[in-house]
Amino acid sequence: MHIRVINPNTTSGMTETIAEAAQRIASPGTRITATQPDSGPVSIEGHFDEAISAVGVLEEVLAGEREGADAYVIACFGDPGLMAARELTRAPVIGIAEAAFHMATLISTRFSVVTTLGRTGIIAEHLLDQYGFAHHCRRVRAAEIPVLDLEANGDAALTRIIDECRRARDEDGIGAIVLGCGGMADLRETISDEVGLPVVEGVTAAVKLAEALVGLRLGTSKHGDLAFPRPKAFTGRFAHLSDLTPGS
Amino acid sequence: MHIRVINPNTTSGMTETIAEAAQRIASPGTRITATQPDSGPVSIEGHFDEAISAVGVLEEVLAGEREGADAYVIACFGDPGLMAARELTRAPVIGIAEAAFHMATLISTRFSVVTTLGRTGIIAEHLLDQYGFAHHCRRVRAAEIPVLDLEANGDAALTRIIDECRRARDEDGIGAIVLGCGGMADLRETISDEVGLPVVEGVTAAVKLAEALVGLRLGTSKHGDLAFPRPKAFTGRFAHLSDLTPGS
Amino acid sequence: MHIRVINPNTTSGMTETIAEAAQRIASPGTRITATQPDSGPVSIEGHFDEAISAVGVLEEVLAGEREGADAYVIACFGDPGLMAARELTRAPVIGIAEAAFHMATLISTRFSVVTTLGRTGIIAEHLLDQYGFAHHCRRVRAAEIPVLDLEANGDAALTRIIDECRRARDEDGIGAIVLGCGGMADLRETISDEVGLPVVEGVTAAVKLAEALVGLRLGTSKHGDLAFPRPKAFTGRFAHLSDLTPGS
Amino acid sequence: MHIRVINPNTTSGMTETIAEAAQRIASPGTRITATQPDSGPVSIEGHFDEAISAVGVLEEVLAGEREGADAYVIACFGDPGLMAARELTRAPVIGIAEAAFHMATLISTRFSVVTTLGRTGIIAEHLLDQYGFAHHCRRVRAAEIPVLDLEANGDAALTRIIDECRRARDEDGIGAIVLGCGGMADLRETISDEVGLPVVEGVTAAVKLAEALVGLRLGTSKHGDLAFPRPKAFTGRFAHLSDLTPGS
Amino acid sequence: MHIRVINPNTTSGMTETIAEAAQRIASPGTRITATQPDSGPVSIEGHFDEAISAVGVLEEVLAGEREGADAYVIACFGDPGLMAARELTRAPVIGIAEAAFHMATLISTRFSVVTTLGRTGIIAEHLLDQYGFAHHCRRVRAAEIPVLDLEANGDAALTRIIDECRRARDEDGIGAIVLGCGGMADLRETISDEVGLPVVEGVTAAVKLAEALVGLRLGTSKHGDLAFPRPKAFTGRFAHLSDLTPGS
Amino acid sequence: MHIRVINPNTTSGMTETIAEAAQRIASPGTRITATQPDSGPVSIEGHFDEAISAVGVLEEVLAGEREGADAYVIACFGDPGLMAARELTRAPVIGIAEAAFHMATLISTRFSVVTTLGRTGIIAEHLLDQYGFAHHCRRVRAAEIPVLDLEANGDAALTRIIDECRRARDEDGIGAIVLGCGGMADLRETISDEVGLPVVEGVTAAVKLAEALVGLRLGTSKHGDLAFPRPKAFTGRFAHLSDLTPGS
Repeated sequence: MHIRVINPNTTSGMTETIAEAAQRIASPGTRITATQPDSGPVSIEGHFDEAISAVGVLEEVLAGEREGADAYVIACFGDPGLMAARELTRAPVIGIAEAAFHMATLISTRFSVVTTLGRTGIIAEHLLDQYGFAHHCRRVRAAEIPVLDLEANGDAALTRIIDECRRARDEDGIGAIVLGCGGMADLRETISDEVGLPVVEGVTAAVKLAEALVGLRLGTSKHGDLAFPRPKAFTGRFAHLSDLTPGS
Repeated sequence: MHIRVINPNTTSGMTETIAEAAQRIASPGTRITATQPDSGPVSIEGHFDEAISAVGVLEEVLAGEREGADAYVIACFGDPGLMAARELTRAPVIGIAEAAFHMATLISTRFSVVTTLGRTGIIAEHLLDQYGFAHHCRRVRAAEIPVLDLEANGDAALTRIIDECRRARDEDGIGAIVLGCGGMADLRETISDEVGLPVVEGVTAAVKLAEALVGLRLGTSKHGDLAFPRPKAFTGRFAHLSDLTPGS
Repeated sequence: MHIRVINPNTTSGMTETIAEAAQRIASPGTRITATQPDSGPVSIEGHFDEAISAVGVLEEVLAGEREGADAYVIACFGDPGLMAARELTRAPVIGIAEAAFHMATLISTRFSVVTTLGRTGIIAEHLLDQYGFAHHCRRVRAAEIPVLDLEANGDAALTRIIDECRRARDEDGIGAIVLGCGGMADLRETISDEVGLPVVEGVTAAVKLAEALVGLRLGTSKHGDLAFPRPKAFTGRFAHLSDLTPGS
Repeated sequence: MHIRVINPNTTSGMTETIAEAAQRIASPGTRITATQPDSGPVSIEGHFDEAISAVGVLEEVLAGEREGADAYVIACFGDPGLMAARELTRAPVIGIAEAAFHMATLISTRFSVVTTLGRTGIIAEHLLDQYGFAHHCRRVRAAEIPVLDLEANGDAALTRIIDECRRARDEDGIGAIVLGCGGMADLRETISDEVGLPVVEGVTAAVKLAEALVGLRLGTSKHGDLAFPRPKAFTGRFAHLSDLTPGS
Repeated sequence: MHIRVINPNTTSGMTETIAEAAQRIASPGTRITATQPDSGPVSIEGHFDEAISAVGVLEEVLAGEREGADAYVIACFGDPGLMAARELTRAPVIGIAEAAFHMATLISTRFSVVTTLGRTGIIAEHLLDQYGFAHHCRRVRAAEIPVLDLEANGDAALTRIIDECRRARDEDGIGAIVLGCGGMADLRETISDEVGLPVVEGVTAAVKLAEALVGLRLGTSKHGDLAFPRPKAFTGRFAHLSDLTPGS
Repeated sequence: MHIRVINPNTTSGMTETIAEAAQRIASPGTRITATQPDSGPVSIEGHFDEAISAVGVLEEVLAGEREGADAYVIACFGDPGLMAARELTRAPVIGIAEAAFHMATLISTRFSVVTTLGRTGIIAEHLLDQYGFAHHCRRVRAAEIPVLDLEANGDAALTRIIDECRRARDEDGIGAIVLGCGGMADLRETISDEVGLPVVEGVTAAVKLAEALVGLRLGTSKHGDLAFPRPKAFTGRFAHLSDLTPGS
């Protein structure tokens, strides 16, 4: 089984972190390819970054189709381009936010999210609503760390995240914590040990959900609104997307 | 990995159907033990049957704890005793209704449920609400087959289910169908072939979700409202449940 | 009119407290029979206790049917077995949580619940959602008292409950308080006097709702999903539940 | 116990119908006074009629306060002036729409409303949302009868209502029907007999709920947003409402 | 274009404040007529005041119809009589609460309301629910100022409002503030300057929405539940409302 | 006042249709600039087209900022890039779907959407949920016309749209219809005349809402989650987006 894990930002250090976490959690028969777009933002910290990053995500899915990937993971907590990516393939496509939410509701009745910056909280709230998990999430919290500080300034960032997780544990009436950034893929066990609660991290959760769906031979439905895009002309820089026939 | 799949009713033929479907879908390293209570209803077709069946489910979880099971699947579409079962163990416990709902939302934006009897639809509706998936489900449909007819009268039952699935496909604006009964565990592929849509079945979905959670080393949170039951006296027929110390 | 008030736990002292409160509030023509199962937990403090207690509740309803009860009250705040009990009878069946919620919304626009242990709050939340009252409830609070302390340690328990009710009054922006445990059936007036707000208690509320429904000649609908259970075999310890014909 | 039943329209024939239904259902110790405003619309068939009728309702509550009423029923299915009326008294005030919805959810899991004119359906929908019962109501149906035809043209009206109730029973997947007009107060038993489902009617339901609340010594909360109106000047035709001190 | 701005209370000073704010924001071609009922409460601070004020609002709309108004604004934050007013005219009718909510969601993802008295918060909550904006509003706050203090005691009132707005800005995670009283129509810019957030005020918002709808030639739908009232007799003080034919 | 109307697809004929409709509805002092990206899909008929089109939308907003636009309209019914666009400017940014929904709720209590292709209905449903209007929309309908047929095959397309609008009027219990495609900007009056209901079209609605917000001096909040993007490096094709300082 070949799972293509797409880091939507263009910071290779983060792609490596994600790749390692994904590979470590994968089953023996699973091959992980972690990729990143060559064009796009170095980190995703708001709606604008996310909208631009979606182009790279989609091109990575198209590349994966040519290579015959069996499943895709979109490894940014805003799940950028998720619905669009699903149109491009019969394979399952999993966002790490949705993956984490799903897993958290299976092991607890209520959870909180701990993310990087407060301004991205609204993205998590919109996803919680759309996916149906708003009621299960007590609170979206931010440690107020820029995303790249997870790499550049890892120890200080980890301390702040753990502090915020402790506050979530003590104040929110929850059973589990969801980590709200792909860049935290390697922190799950450390944080869980420190905080004493199950900690759900999206990259690892998404890899296992992708394996589960492939194992079930369930892929993205091509009946209805996730069918392949209608072939059509794209102009200018996006002319290479014209008349896609991804399902052929 | 040892997954204990609990058929909440006492019909051994159905336990076998479930066991075979579970084993067939399981990963190489996974051992499936399919069990059924010795006491309880031969089929579950309403709130009363379900309430009684929960006792057997819980005793099967306690038995599993003694044997060191790594995860549990509750293989009836009403997820009887799910929250209570989670209190009894650190292992993940997955209901087949929730499993099917989760998987269906990962491959489609909207799904319909096709279940056995109309009177059980309300149970599915309550679960859809509690889990957060009400918005993703267009309609809960019934083929109006008694549960045991799936065994006794398999061909006729299958025909009716396929007919109802076709109506769901043509009228509901959906991308996937969820089969609403544990006794349909062996019908998924046939129905999907006939209907031309992804068909999600709960037993198989739950086995893969259980494997995923065990792979993630995520188990039921013991922080908060799914903590082990407070030890206490039980009287009469239930005296053997007194002062449980399942986590010790 | 004969109302059978079922204490779902097996502590006779609590049954007496409930019986007295029920009888005191009943109309002159109403006869109260308070019962408790002979088998089950001595108190109900979580999902597991509740699931086991449902068996006793249902058997008490079946006993009531043989005696010709006109209505049933399930006197535990989690309303254990409520839907299942409704399948067994044409008479009305009222849970004390739902009764309290209904009454509270008739005298205030927003209320808070004050219950015993925090871990049972999730049960109240699930019921508020299912019944439609989530929006009317500002907060589910716990005094963190084990249920049996209401009997064993009454004065200290009462003090803690009153303290929590005062916090609800001062912080929650509410017009009424709902007491979240059947064991508080005798505390309503004392608490209301101390706190200065209407206090709604479920046992008393349920008795009056039961009288109202009987007075209206409205009983549980037998059309649709609360129809009598389909007759079938039960095995083992539950063989006595086989082929019930409660409506005959 | 003295319950003041207020018919919000000014048609005395309808007040009599309501009075008879209320008295017939009342407990022996309950005295019913049925009143109607001297000013207002002869029937209520939309938002405008309802807004004007609220003035008369409120004046009738003030009159009731002078007479020492123990509870109030507002006998129009739009519950006109309900929140305002609650500000005027410590007694319980019950709208017939809310009363019917509450009772219907206690005897069934899903109900439909059958009302007079389609244009009033939106009023019922708004109330279902505000009270929390939207999810329990499958459909608001109209027999398309002007309200006063219930009096002037009773047999034809009854036939149409019964036809619509039968459609509700056969198409909506419900357990009970709610009659959506105060003028149907005398039709409940006939319709129930014809249709074979429990039929909930608001005037009768409200009388029994009022008795229940008085029996519980629960009245409208004066803590918070249903407190007595702040005394102030009213001008012109409404000068008599100046500096009300209803609670004194 | 002629917009009739109706102050639902009878305090002429407030009508003047509203008129000036409305005229100042209006486009060059827009004529504002600000009116107030001759009968009704001098301020609106609860459900009762609001119910009585609706009569005056509706009579002012009828007067506007005789004068050929192109649009109406109801200038009290509870939007009294809004649905009823819409029945009376083909012109658009805008409530200032709804106007402010609409505009706030176009410039921010989440807002808080700052109103006068806590007891009116429930009215705002009911409107947020009915209009669909509950999810966009973080919190309804009150400065605890009687409405007429906005006139009699303006500086002190302004200070308290600004203080509450600052708390909203610092604690609520919002992007904009909605002022919750028509009497604050002249305070918008001062508060916005002091608080540093966009501040949305309903009178000004409603005038611009009314201009927008008139510019689009969109008026209140007369198809369905906002059609003209059915002509009928009104009795007593309201006889002048009999057999209205507002659309003729 | 200068409003930049951005057609997110690259079909200049559609840009012209939109420009004409926008200019015709604009107030005398309003200058409309209609633009389209040079790169992107020729029509938007699903999630993938929409995700790619967002890049062009955002670049058009950045161009508008350099030219000093006072407001922006995103003229595709999926509101592509709306939240991201808001981050880039202090000016208001209005999507045509949200504009149409807002206006429809001001003139009716319930509306239906008539869009081009059924597969885009899910996009409308997601927006209705996010904006809060799901409850106001009875049904999302599709005429099943490819978007470019609105231009290439206008008469046949119009006939199908009118037919679907008539079905909406007759079956859905609505007061208004929302047209679900920017390419229908010139059809509003024809359809309204044929169907006899108010018809709300998004381009025209958005222009008037933009004028209203500019008139109110209300722009996108820069406090919180719509603040300017954090400056950062973008790589590759998107390097020109590095270190944006749009607010400087």
